[in-house]
Amino acid sequence: MSSMPEPAHGSRPTLEAVAARAGVSRATVSRVVNGGAGVRQALVEKVREAVEELGYVPNHAARTLVTRRNGAVAVIIAEPEFRVFSDPFFEQQVRGISRELTAHDTQLVLLWVEGPGDYERIGRYLGGGHVDGALAFSVHNDDELPSIIRRAQVPAVFGGRPGWPGATAGLAVPYVDCDNRGGAREAVRHLLSLGRERVAHIAGPHDQTSAMDRLDGYRDVLLDAGPGLIAQGDFTEESGARAMAELLEQRPDLDAVFTANDLMASGALRVLRERGLRVPEDVALVGFDDMTSIAEATDPPLTTVRQDIEGMGRLMVRLLMRVLNADEAEPGAGSTPGSVITPTELVRRASA
Amino acid sequence: MSSMPEPAHGSRPTLEAVAARAGVSRATVSRVVNGGAGVRQALVEKVREAVEELGYVPNHAARTLVTRRNGAVAVIIAEPEFRVFSDPFFEQQVRGISRELTAHDTQLVLLWVEGPGDYERIGRYLGGGHVDGALAFSVHNDDELPSIIRRAQVPAVFGGRPGWPGATAGLAVPYVDCDNRGGAREAVRHLLSLGRERVAHIAGPHDQTSAMDRLDGYRDVLLDAGPGLIAQGDFTEESGARAMAELLEQRPDLDAVFTANDLMASGALRVLRERGLRVPEDVALVGFDDMTSIAEATDPPLTTVRQDIEGMGRLMVRLLMRVLNADEAEPGAGSTPGSVITPTELVRRASA
Repeated sequence: MSSMPEPAHGSRPTLEAVAARAGVSRATVSRVVNGGAGVRQALVEKVREAVEELGYVPNHAARTLVTRRNGAVAVIIAEPEFRVFSDPFFEQQVRGISRELTAHDTQLVLLWVEGPGDYERIGRYLGGGHVDGALAFSVHNDDELPSIIRRAQVPAVFGGRPGWPGATAGLAVPYVDCDNRGGAREAVRHLLSLGRERVAHIAGPHDQTSAMDRLDGYRDVLLDAGPGLIAQGDFTEESGARAMAELLEQRPDLDAVFTANDLMASGALRVLRERGLRVPEDVALVGFDDMTSIAEATDPPLTTVRQDIEGMGRLMVRLLMRVLNADEAEPGAGSTPGSVITPTELVRRASA
Repeated sequence: MSSMPEPAHGSRPTLEAVAARAGVSRATVSRVVNGGAGVRQALVEKVREAVEELGYVPNHAARTLVTRRNGAVAVIIAEPEFRVFSDPFFEQQVRGISRELTAHDTQLVLLWVEGPGDYERIGRYLGGGHVDGALAFSVHNDDELPSIIRRAQVPAVFGGRPGWPGATAGLAVPYVDCDNRGGAREAVRHLLSLGRERVAHIAGPHDQTSAMDRLDGYRDVLLDAGPGLIAQGDFTEESGARAMAELLEQRPDLDAVFTANDLMASGALRVLRERGLRVPEDVALVGFDDMTSIAEATDPPLTTVRQDIEGMGRLMVRLLMRVLNADEAEPGAGSTPGSVITPTELVRRASA
């Protein structure tokens, strides 16, 4: 690194300086910096040498005004920082997104939302022309995020089926989701196939479509589940433990539980063990997600519904790139690619 | 949200449209959008109403060229995504940074580094005028990141004392760190005060100053520690387990271990338990960091050297804001505030 040319403090090398060093016009430098189309190879090389020698960094803020491409995409998780860093779901989804953006030579910038006060600032950032697009996930139904993204006119792809009012009216909102309802049905059918008769459900938050679709899948199979068999969680481990305690209070005779995610299953498992109930002998347990860091680590290992979280992250990037490329070919055409629903799969381990 | 005015698809409301609606000149709108200095209150209100009605979002890419402020700061963790999301150290530091940036109405955008191939892209992003400054941490001594930040001429504050060649020569590099060496000395002295005679050390990576300073602190107290008492880790839990196994192989007579962070202490503890060694009766154990999610959860709870990680994150933001404000008052003055070393404190729990 010590051999790198050191620009004088306070003076970033200019396009003019590069042009002078290379002995070409400003326009030629500009064309080379923006891809080199229509410039003779010999000149391209001269300019590249000068760029290297001077340590010139193109001013993308200025370029943005012309090309409208920044080479950066915002990933927005509509959850506070403590959940972003503690829920392995986000890690897996971000991993898929990160790898796919890297494959497209695009910089990932991660944002999250501590509270409603953050939205104005996020709107300013998105509207400021710093990113070419946005990938948003864990959006709740009453979230301001979708309308803020819309007002900033930043192309976006959502992770999870949008459930906010008007989401499906007018402009289609591209999203990637898994077959939440079908996966839930398979989980419950599996528990019934084991001879279980009182299958409870720990549901996720009411304001997220993934949770509601899984609840619907449970209800599809168990039209008459009976009272006291559904408890409310919020996708955190703690809420799974609390909901399990409630269920045991109301229905000490339950013999199976399907939880809307693995993290809540892990909390439920802890409570079952504390009460001296054996899994799966006394209570069979099925989760959702197949977060292997959880599902393989629990004792017993968790039977769960697998969704390809990392792959869904990759798909979100590919959808967004399709929107961006269509827009570049025909500005304002606003081509909206279809959304994608990925299949789920029951993964049998020891808990059911 | 349904009451929000919906701009026609493809046409972001312009400054001109706001000016027409408010019945003022473009220049007046521009002044109001940029803070309103020198504009009569009645006009400010008219413009704000028009901005609201039209859902106008100022084009910050254009503004950046004039004001050179984006209201966004990049936080760059020089580690791959799996470490960013699994090491609670980063969560705590990011939490402090996030809260302090929010207090300054500044958007945090998080970036990380999967590999050397990412640096060129990150350099382009930083040089592109999308952020006002950068906070970088977990920078390794041979990291390209500092020189990339320097070339992009983005004001930066580092988390941890810079150890790369030439870091202290020439321009001062502002950083925030804790008293790593003093804290390590206190940990080792504590173990000696308990009557321990063969105190081992599990060190962190050779290319990070925090790890080297802690090793130096250990050596300050134990000039003649004896052979086979120092093992190498890399700050991950797995490496702590591996290093502990090595130490027991070389020195089955050891009676205490000081590890360079809590995560490695947790790995070491697992190996000690597997070998049937009691903590602290057979082997006393002291960590570093006081990551409460680890230190309070281990069995027995971990005695450790506390550093105020969240507070250090806040301090990094304050230092950066001082650099930015000084620069705005007198562009190019390049005032560099001093770095900050925060104190550490031994927290006694049950492991030593």
